[in-house]
Amino acid sequence: MSKGVTPRSQDYARWYTDVIRKAELADYGPVKGTMVIRPYGYAIWDAIKEAYDQRFKATGHVNAYFPLLIPKSYFSREAEHVEGFAKECAVVTHSRLRTAPDGGVEVDPESKLEEELVIRPTSETVIWAMYKQWINSYRDLPILINQWANIVRWELRTRLFLRTSEFLWQEGHTAHATETEAREEALLILDIYKEVAETEMALPVIAGLKSEAEKFAGAVETWAIEAMMGDGRALQCGTSHYLGQNFAKAFDVTFRNEANEQEYVYATSWGVSTRLVGAVVMAHGDDKGLRLPPRIAPVQVVIVPIYKDESKDKVMEAAGKLTASMEQAGVRVKLDDRETVTPGFKFNDWEMKGVPLRLEIGPRDVEAGQAVVVRRDLDEKQTILLDNLPATIPNLLEEIQASLFQQAEAFKSTHTKQLDDWTAFKTLMEQGGFAVCGWDGDPATEAAIKEETKATIRCILQDEGPAESTCIYSGNPARYMVVLARAY
Amino acid sequence: MSKGVTPRSQDYARWYTDVIRKAELADYGPVKGTMVIRPYGYAIWDAIKEAYDQRFKATGHVNAYFPLLIPKSYFSREAEHVEGFAKECAVVTHSRLRTAPDGGVEVDPESKLEEELVIRPTSETVIWAMYKQWINSYRDLPILINQWANIVRWELRTRLFLRTSEFLWQEGHTAHATETEAREEALLILDIYKEVAETEMALPVIAGLKSEAEKFAGAVETWAIEAMMGDGRALQCGTSHYLGQNFAKAFDVTFRNEANEQEYVYATSWGVSTRLVGAVVMAHGDDKGLRLPPRIAPVQVVIVPIYKDESKDKVMEAAGKLTASMEQAGVRVKLDDRETVTPGFKFNDWEMKGVPLRLEIGPRDVEAGQAVVVRRDLDEKQTILLDNLPATIPNLLEEIQASLFQQAEAFKSTHTKQLDDWTAFKTLMEQGGFAVCGWDGDPATEAAIKEETKATIRCILQDEGPAESTCIYSGNPARYMVVLARAY
Repeated sequence: MSKGVTPRSQDYARWYTDVIRKAELADYGPVKGTMVIRPYGYAIWDAIKEAYDQRFKATGHVNAYFPLLIPKSYFSREAEHVEGFAKECAVVTHSRLRTAPDGGVEVDPESKLEEELVIRPTSETVIWAMYKQWINSYRDLPILINQWANIVRWELRTRLFLRTSEFLWQEGHTAHATETEAREEALLILDIYKEVAETEMALPVIAGLKSEAEKFAGAVETWAIEAMMGDGRALQCGTSHYLGQNFAKAFDVTFRNEANEQEYVYATSWGVSTRLVGAVVMAHGDDKGLRLPPRIAPVQVVIVPIYKDESKDKVMEAAGKLTASMEQAGVRVKLDDRETVTPGFKFNDWEMKGVPLRLEIGPRDVEAGQAVVVRRDLDEKQTILLDNLPATIPNLLEEIQASLFQQAEAFKSTHTKQLDDWTAFKTLMEQGGFAVCGWDGDPATEAAIKEETKATIRCILQDEGPAESTCIYSGNPARYMVVLARAY
Repeated sequence: MSKGVTPRSQDYARWYTDVIRKAELADYGPVKGTMVIRPYGYAIWDAIKEAYDQRFKATGHVNAYFPLLIPKSYFSREAEHVEGFAKECAVVTHSRLRTAPDGGVEVDPESKLEEELVIRPTSETVIWAMYKQWINSYRDLPILINQWANIVRWELRTRLFLRTSEFLWQEGHTAHATETEAREEALLILDIYKEVAETEMALPVIAGLKSEAEKFAGAVETWAIEAMMGDGRALQCGTSHYLGQNFAKAFDVTFRNEANEQEYVYATSWGVSTRLVGAVVMAHGDDKGLRLPPRIAPVQVVIVPIYKDESKDKVMEAAGKLTASMEQAGVRVKLDDRETVTPGFKFNDWEMKGVPLRLEIGPRDVEAGQAVVVRRDLDEKQTILLDNLPATIPNLLEEIQASLFQQAEAFKSTHTKQLDDWTAFKTLMEQGGFAVCGWDGDPATEAAIKEETKATIRCILQDEGPAESTCIYSGNPARYMVVLARAY
């Protein structure tokens, strides 16, 4: 299996695609830029989804579902939103096919819609049209709704999981009686985004504010978590927006406050998507394939029995017992009992799929009452007594979880440099990495940096004051400390 | 709250819509025929979804995700499928909006697509295009994939949950090496559909084969579960199709069998949808609103504290403890601590929302160490000692689950009649109910029955032979025993 994977050092983009395909995470669909998420990739997404969903619910959020199709006119209402964002959309114009003269099908011209419909590129507009119906008084607030849904944005340059015309995501849309409460909500979600990324996905992230140029059109402020991929580039992994009263004004959503005055509602929106699966691949993968953090691994332990004809029964019996004991210990285990492929093929296959632990058991192991345990993160073998495995394996999985985080964190630290020299900055951007720099706060500076180096402001660091810094580009006094990087 | 609900006896359709709206299950969306599933309705769907998902996984199925958009040409490939089904579709023809002269947005004519795309009305075509890439040998089989997704079918007459232009569903699509295995799969799923409906949703169903006229176009055989609603009409609640080699032939999907010969793959597909939420409303609801089976109720027990100013602290403390003890007993409990509405309002509100059990606690209850327990299914009050509640409530919930099933089963039995007299049949169809009758097997007979009575064959009963029966319409010898009813 792994023979077919392009080494990372040779061509990182091809390595990424190779791993996605060979680990059977996803394929391109028949329509350009669409993606088929295969069962193994979907199970990873499901684990990430579940981790977020639990935390959303624990903080008072509820799930709902809003329509896929939005009247075109809704996109005219929030002018900034339209300007910055909603242009590349799938537009529905007809509602019927009919039999064509050649026996196939064609669009029935009689079914042309009076008003074209847009497949949601995000749901603010349709949700705020509903909130207008639901909100009258401060008693109706807050509304803390999240939706798990599919989204379509017509993308020209696509890459599996990272950028596809259709993707899956969650989008939270909350409505509040005060600015303070809405701002707290946006930051609460940012914390959840960071915590799940780090705890479950073993993905160290930096969190901060977006610049005007990089923020969501229609938001007052956009917060984001950014992770470093294996080539030193940044990947935006989640955004949380404080929307102020922009959408409330666009859709005329007011409420009677406790003082009995009419006021516009304050809002947030926030999302993470299937892009996170791509982040896991790129942050942890190596030249053998995926390396999955145990907490989101569909299979945490694979058992590979090794036998000849005469030892088969004995080995399979022990392997079966071992599987049962792992299940009892609450481990997601798979016994690879395929008879059509060799153990060596299985080793490569499960390494490609990033399973954290492999247990090998052969006839001599059965006699000695042991198994060979191989860690995917370290490529390290050890022999452990079968009786000890149910207690040992869960600990080993936690060790692997921590080790993957530490490896990613060490990589990120090594490739993050505090810089005030333009030449050193350009070199780092070429090589890949995050630069912590002063910025004078001028959008023209930001644009010039992007033009010359392809680097963008990933986020504005809030907890580090500008001190005595100067802007990396203009040399003027720095207004903000920012993280700059090339991004996906 | 309940004052606004039209009595069932007066106008069943209006009662249904009133309950859906007042229980805050769903609203119509801005585009005609689309639905917004509100948090309470979504939580019911989520519980149903979870019940099915667990069983699918326990029987070896895995989830995946296929694209929303399907090239128009795919719908020409499977001729019968097109003919019977796929005409009322949302068609995407453009990929971009642009700023209009008036400052709003308009469709950019430059973005016209070369080939129009169809929003999936079901995913067989796109999935079988992928299966062609994934299947080579018998070793690649079976494929047991399920997808949770949204679907669009342009419907003219819509009703919330029952028939909307967009709905949520699961669609299983399996591929097998033999006809036997595929047929077994279709029946396995039919069993799961029936079991979850009866066990979790307290919904007695009949399961059987569809007639040629009623089956899914493109299927060799369609199996369905059918439930009786509160007005005696039938609701198709789930279908499981044996597709034979139809889609494999249309998409040229062959495999090398164990004898090393190329053969077309055998297939099934099967689905249940958000329509099931409508089934729960109609099968169990009464003039006070919803009545939810405890296993799928988002809130199983609501606690309503009753106090005056001087007793508030004492009552709220006891109510808080009671809530905690319910949570510890694994019960989904809600403490209704709203201060802006009266206890009477709360009673009506939670009755409308169908919460199975209500606990009332006032100052005298606190002193006596007790609470008043009110069952939604029986409208029956009893007083139970607080100390006994954690043990009693789970049992009461199971009793309510069983009682709702028995009530629905009794209603179905009363309104199901074995008939061989045409006049009696017509009367039953007018009044509402299921008729078990002989049918001569002639599609013309079936069409005539539908024409004259609006009744359709809901399913062909497999385990009851025709015996000496005659056809209810033609008087000819019966070939099948069937269930006839008017349906949603």
